[in-house]
Formats: sequence, structure tokens, C-alpha cells
Amino acid sequence: MAEILSSPCSDGPVGTVWLVGAGPGDPDLLTLRAARLLGEAELIVHDGLVAAEILALASPYAEMISVAKARSRHSMPQEEINTLLVREALAGRDVVRLKGGDPFIFGRGGEEVEACRAAGVPVEVVPGISAAVGCAAEAGLPLTHRGLSSAVTFVAGQCKGLTDQNWAGLAGRDRTLVIYMGVATAADIAEKLMADGITP
Amino acid sequence: MAEILSSPCSDGPVGTVWLVGAGPGDPDLLTLRAARLLGEAELIVHDGLVAAEILALASPYAEMISVAKARSRHSMPQEEINTLLVREALAGRDVVRLKGGDPFIFGRGGEEVEACRAAGVPVEVVPGISAAVGCAAEAGLPLTHRGLSSAVTFVAGQCKGLTDQNWAGLAGRDRTLVIYMGVATAADIAEKLMADGITP
Repeated sequence: MAEILSSPCSDGPVGTVWLVGAGPGDPDLLTLRAARLLGEAELIVHDGLVAAEILALASPYAEMISVAKARSRHSMPQEEINTLLVREALAGRDVVRLKGGDPFIFGRGGEEVEACRAAGVPVEVVPGISAAVGCAAEAGLPLTHRGLSSAVTFVAGQCKGLTDQNWAGLAGRDRTLVIYMGVATAADIAEKLMADGITP
Repeated sequence: MAEILSSPCSDGPVGTVWLVGAGPGDPDLLTLRAARLLGEAELIVHDGLVAAEILALASPYAEMISVAKARSRHSMPQEEINTLLVREALAGRDVVRLKGGDPFIFGRGGEEVEACRAAGVPVEVVPGISAAVGCAAEAGLPLTHRGLSSAVTFVAGQCKGLTDQNWAGLAGRDRTLVIYMGVATAADIAEKLMADGITP
């Protein structure tokens, strides 16, 4: 009975879920580990944010599941993604869960890790180049710089209600503030920062 | 005359300086671009922080220059590193400047970019997995997490005098604070954070 409970979908071994950061878009910025896992994976569950050039590195035999609905631009609810990953792993399949950027910086990777752990599914995280780091390199603009900035903060302009977030003190002298997913809410962000005393 | 001024050390073409992030230490976490540049480089100028396993990926014909003095644990002054990179590029050599983590997060890459630009040397930055991102993945601990943390800040415990840095408000509710190079100054850091109202 204990055995059935711990592995409800299969009598075989449980698969591993690999949460893999795909980086900012350029396939050349995948890590060696990410590229290898992608090339060997039988099942890839990917975000809409992952570039087509990166998905093209997958084996032609891999099953690909997108958790982004292209037309509505809404993605599968996080709860359903968690359920999908756990179900496939309990059925004995290794799953590569491919996410844009890094899984642990606005990637909701923490929630997927929790779901796997709660279900007894082994989970491994492969870090990726986060968007801010990729953009900074591309633009030649450092995130920290002696005499100018000794701290860098990443916040999200969209992940969570902007008004619910407290950004007080995150921008200003000697600090770099990077805003992810901020284009749509740029006007609100500007007001938020000015209310915090930042000069436009 | 203009030609001589723009290329004082050589009549040939100027080389490119590649500022390359080597990531947190595991060679498997190099980006594909970093691994390729490393394998093809004729001249590699590297920090002491870069792991031996990564340096082993260089071509056997590459000239390797370490800018860390192992015994004293002091590195070459930044000014001298800048001069070295510029001199070699003006002499027509492509230079891979290999740095631990990411060049633009406490890597002083900004200073090297400035030196190259001032000398008319083309410079390209290849981002790397920063230590905090690598550690978080390894430990399975997200840097942002819905309902727990919507901002993540990186500061340095050693790059610059701790007392000169203002960390007010960077730690606390709904925020993750990551301290780089903080082991040696851990006691001072604890006091600094408590003075800012953080409960131990």
C-alpha cells in the first residue's frame, strides 16, 4: 500500500524533473548542461518565452508540450503545469522543463520545485542567463560599477500587482534597479519611482 | 598620421577583447559561446577565481596569463589589467578575458569595457551564470517566489568598504538579499543589517 501511495501512476521508477534555464534567447547563451539535456530529452515542457532557435536544438524524437497558448497569450495556470510535471515524472519519464532566462528569477521555478518535492519526484535545477544579465552584456552596460553602483536589484513590473509591491529604496544613488516585464506598465512604474523620490 | 594614432602599437588590425563570464565553477555551466571562445583563444587572461577544470578546456596552444598572484592572494591592480588587455589588442591579438561568474556583476567588467573603448579596441561581453544564481539552483532555493519575495538584490561584502555602502531597505519582507564575498566580513554584515532593523 505504501508503495502504491508513493508511486500512484506506475510500478516503475520515478522520473526526474529538470528545471532548465534557457537564457535570454540566443542559443549560444545556453549552458553546456542545458544544451545537452535539451538534445537528449524525450519530453520537453516549455514556455512561450523560449525562442524557436532553442527549441530547434531538441531531438527530433522529443515530445514537445508548450504551456503557452499562443493566440490568447495566456499561459497554462501554474497549478496545471505543476500537475503535468509531477504526473509525467510519476509515470517514469524524465522531464525537461524549459524556461526563459533563469528558473529562479521571476520564473516561478520555486513553485515547481515545491510541487515535485511534495510528490516525491526528484527535481534538479539548471541555472540560466537571466534577461537582465544578457541585456547588460549585449549593451555593454555593467550592472555594478565601482564608484557608481554597488548593488543591483531585480524587480518585476508585471508578475504581481505593481501596487502590492514595495520598491521603496531599491532605486537611487549607488544602486542599479532592473525592471523585468515592465514595458506594459512603464507609466505606472515611473509614477511609483517618482513617489519614492527618484528624479526622472 | 590618423592611422598611426588610432593604432599606436602595430600597423595591423586591432584585436577584439572578449570579456567572458566563466560561471560559478562547474565547466558544464559555461555558455556554449564561452566554451567555444575558450577552446579557440590564442591568449587567455584569467582571474584566480576561474576553476582549473574550466582552464583545462583551453587549447593546448593558448597562452595563459593569470592576473591573480596565488601566494599573496592579491590580484594585479585593475589598472594594470586594463593596460594589458589594451596593449595586446592593439598589437593585433584577440584576447579572451575570463572572469568568474558574470563580468558585469561584481566583476569590474565595466572598467575593462571603458578602458578598451577609450583606446579604440573593440570589446564584446559574454554573460555568465553569476554565483548567486548558480548557488540558488544547486541548493534548490528560488531567488524570487510568489508571496514570499518579489525583488532580489545582489550586494558585495568585500568589493568596497562595507561602511561606505548604504544597504538600507535592501533586506526585509518580500525581498531577497544576496551577499557576495561576505564570509570574511560576516560579523560586520550582521551588525549592518540589524542596524537597518532586520531581526536576526
